[in-house]
Amino acid sequence: MKKYADMTIEELKAEQASLLEAYEAKKAMGLKLDMSRGKPAPDQLDLSMDLLDAVNSSSDMKSSNNIDCRNYGVMDGLPEAKELMAEIMGTTSDHVMVFGNASLPIMYDTIARLMLFGIAGEEPWCKQEKLSFICPTPGYDRHFAITESFGINMIPVEWKADGPDMDAIEALVKDDASIKGIWVVPKYSNPTGYSCSDETVRRFAALKPKAKDFRIFWDNAYAVHDLYEDKADSLLDIISECEKCGNADLVFEFASTSKVSLAGAGIAAMATSAANMAWAKKHITIQTIGYDKINQLRHVRYFKDMSGIKAQMKKQAELIRPKFEAVISTLERELSELDIASWTNPNGGYFISFQSMNGCAKRIGVLCKEAGMVITNVGATYPYGKDEADSNIRIAPTYPSLDEMYKAAELFALCVKLATVEKLLA
Amino acid sequence: MKKYADMTIEELKAEQASLLEAYEAKKAMGLKLDMSRGKPAPDQLDLSMDLLDAVNSSSDMKSSNNIDCRNYGVMDGLPEAKELMAEIMGTTSDHVMVFGNASLPIMYDTIARLMLFGIAGEEPWCKQEKLSFICPTPGYDRHFAITESFGINMIPVEWKADGPDMDAIEALVKDDASIKGIWVVPKYSNPTGYSCSDETVRRFAALKPKAKDFRIFWDNAYAVHDLYEDKADSLLDIISECEKCGNADLVFEFASTSKVSLAGAGIAAMATSAANMAWAKKHITIQTIGYDKINQLRHVRYFKDMSGIKAQMKKQAELIRPKFEAVISTLERELSELDIASWTNPNGGYFISFQSMNGCAKRIGVLCKEAGMVITNVGATYPYGKDEADSNIRIAPTYPSLDEMYKAAELFALCVKLATVEKLLA
Repeated sequence: MKKYADMTIEELKAEQASLLEAYEAKKAMGLKLDMSRGKPAPDQLDLSMDLLDAVNSSSDMKSSNNIDCRNYGVMDGLPEAKELMAEIMGTTSDHVMVFGNASLPIMYDTIARLMLFGIAGEEPWCKQEKLSFICPTPGYDRHFAITESFGINMIPVEWKADGPDMDAIEALVKDDASIKGIWVVPKYSNPTGYSCSDETVRRFAALKPKAKDFRIFWDNAYAVHDLYEDKADSLLDIISECEKCGNADLVFEFASTSKVSLAGAGIAAMATSAANMAWAKKHITIQTIGYDKINQLRHVRYFKDMSGIKAQMKKQAELIRPKFEAVISTLERELSELDIASWTNPNGGYFISFQSMNGCAKRIGVLCKEAGMVITNVGATYPYGKDEADSNIRIAPTYPSLDEMYKAAELFALCVKLATVEKLLA
Repeated sequence: MKKYADMTIEELKAEQASLLEAYEAKKAMGLKLDMSRGKPAPDQLDLSMDLLDAVNSSSDMKSSNNIDCRNYGVMDGLPEAKELMAEIMGTTSDHVMVFGNASLPIMYDTIARLMLFGIAGEEPWCKQEKLSFICPTPGYDRHFAITESFGINMIPVEWKADGPDMDAIEALVKDDASIKGIWVVPKYSNPTGYSCSDETVRRFAALKPKAKDFRIFWDNAYAVHDLYEDKADSLLDIISECEKCGNADLVFEFASTSKVSLAGAGIAAMATSAANMAWAKKHITIQTIGYDKINQLRHVRYFKDMSGIKAQMKKQAELIRPKFEAVISTLERELSELDIASWTNPNGGYFISFQSMNGCAKRIGVLCKEAGMVITNVGATYPYGKDEADSNIRIAPTYPSLDEMYKAAELFALCVKLATVEKLLA
């Protein structure tokens, strides 16, 4: 096939006519497809149904340290739950606190706490004049929504193949005390699927931010979410790297079992330094008597240890991998020779990041929608929903069935071609 | 027995000598007793073990509105969980949002939200110069800890037999815009066990606070926690009373099943007006994707409706009532004729409130501790831990066994007598 760039106006017009015909045919099918949501599919959730039997009316309800898990108390989690979450995060349990059903509220509450009370002897953030966060892009819209809701100014930097642009980050934090934090999904990043290299992690750990109350928000959401056994990304432990640099307090790390066991009914954890833990506990002990220890016990009894987690994630991968392959193979077949777009081909995580020609992404979204397919809001992968280049689209392959995924990928590729031709003819 | 007030110095000295002898004998027994904690006893938790089977690997995981409870979403709770919690609170489900495992973090987060974002078009509380809360006393130390942690000035008013001193409250809120809220445990108050009368609830609903962002924090923690079938307190629905007064936005109500099902693994809810709900949802939707819907489903499938809740609370009462009676009967026998103390005799809840002679409570705490018994920190029932009269002690009869409770009550009465004689001789 000829590249669009090499086509004459006449050839492009002929291509447009043929694409439009195909598009109208798709539209007439009355499709209902959804590639927007980073949600597990029902068959993934089926894998964890036995979790619900792991604690039952005949169970011993005592934790390893002889706590009655049915009663109040133990604000920072059961010892065995700390062990399990530490293994998932690649750190040691003495750095870990286990909380409720999801990690997003832990991140939110950590920032709320910094706003209200401050850290490291600095003024509460709400009393400081200007607050900024660095936001690697494309990134996770719910991170951006949190910082935006607190009135924190967001500075985009590029997410590259080996992690965020560290040159830019080092330069930004060095002189500007208003820069208080950075969002990072270090492994299988949302949405690129790319991970921080060892060098990137080490450069994060060695940061010398001007603000003493600067913190890295290390959202290790996809720590164990490999798609392939033979080519999994590895991620250095940021906690110990920070310690080596004399920067122990620099990072708050977050993880959950939401996409390991049951979404919204998992367990979630934070890992950080002793000083940061003491700071968090001082406030959390006022906020709650304790989180749901029975659900912690349920998870520990079901998964037992890292081998249980890995076995589960292998089964998850078997269900998700064909859907990723459906998207990638369709995009390859339909688009690669045209040289009008690029996309990531990650080794894990929940997303594929797609780059159209500049100025085409919103139009692709509209075309998809009109043909019965929802994609993630175009722009959502950028702070304030503003993708200046109008080119990034997050593809979420997990939720639809494999059959739907093939149909969705084909329709998507068609919309990409149509929007691109329109753009070239405009 | 002779009243202590009528005794001569010599008689008091003789009494002291005899009490000391008894006290030393108790001390020598090496007791380990705990009347400090408002925790259910293991036998109460045993009552809810079948809850853990109510959802299992064979269960249909769909909610009444066909939501897969295993997946993300539904930030404000399942419809059937709203129904159940509405019944417990005596309101309708359209006022209710169901959240996580406990109500304390809902209260904390509500105040944190007011601090950071404000309500009713007013400045965020953290930007306002002075903030005050009215704290009916004796009251719940964890409420006071929340307001103290946010730097909110606490103003004590007296909790009487029919609820807080409404004359004082009406006078305070009328002219002072810095008064932003009040803590109320309206039924079987912690620690008095007394409830708000209908008139008190109506006066709360009719309050005309100067601050537009004043809110009542109505912690209906003991809504269904009756001890006796034939003499349960009743509580008017504050939500509808507020509506009748054109004051719909005045109240945030909280409740949980922590002391109905399993402490720390229950479900918790907030009830409030449409405007307050919209305000809360706007922020909570940034904080979380959703709470644990499986635990909500578990509770609904187990309890079904209010009759299931009532049946459970009847069983709970059968276990707790003898412990309350152990305390009350011991105090009656040991102390009533001496005319040196008073105590409440509530129809429900988790506590008995004890008043010693002024200036004796701390000493009673020390004497108890030295003889091997922990009681709630003396002073904890007052803001900043300061009971000016040094006379209130919270007795928590639920956690010890009945046998221990008799021993504990006897030791407590002995310590009261000893501290009182010491005081009279000082």
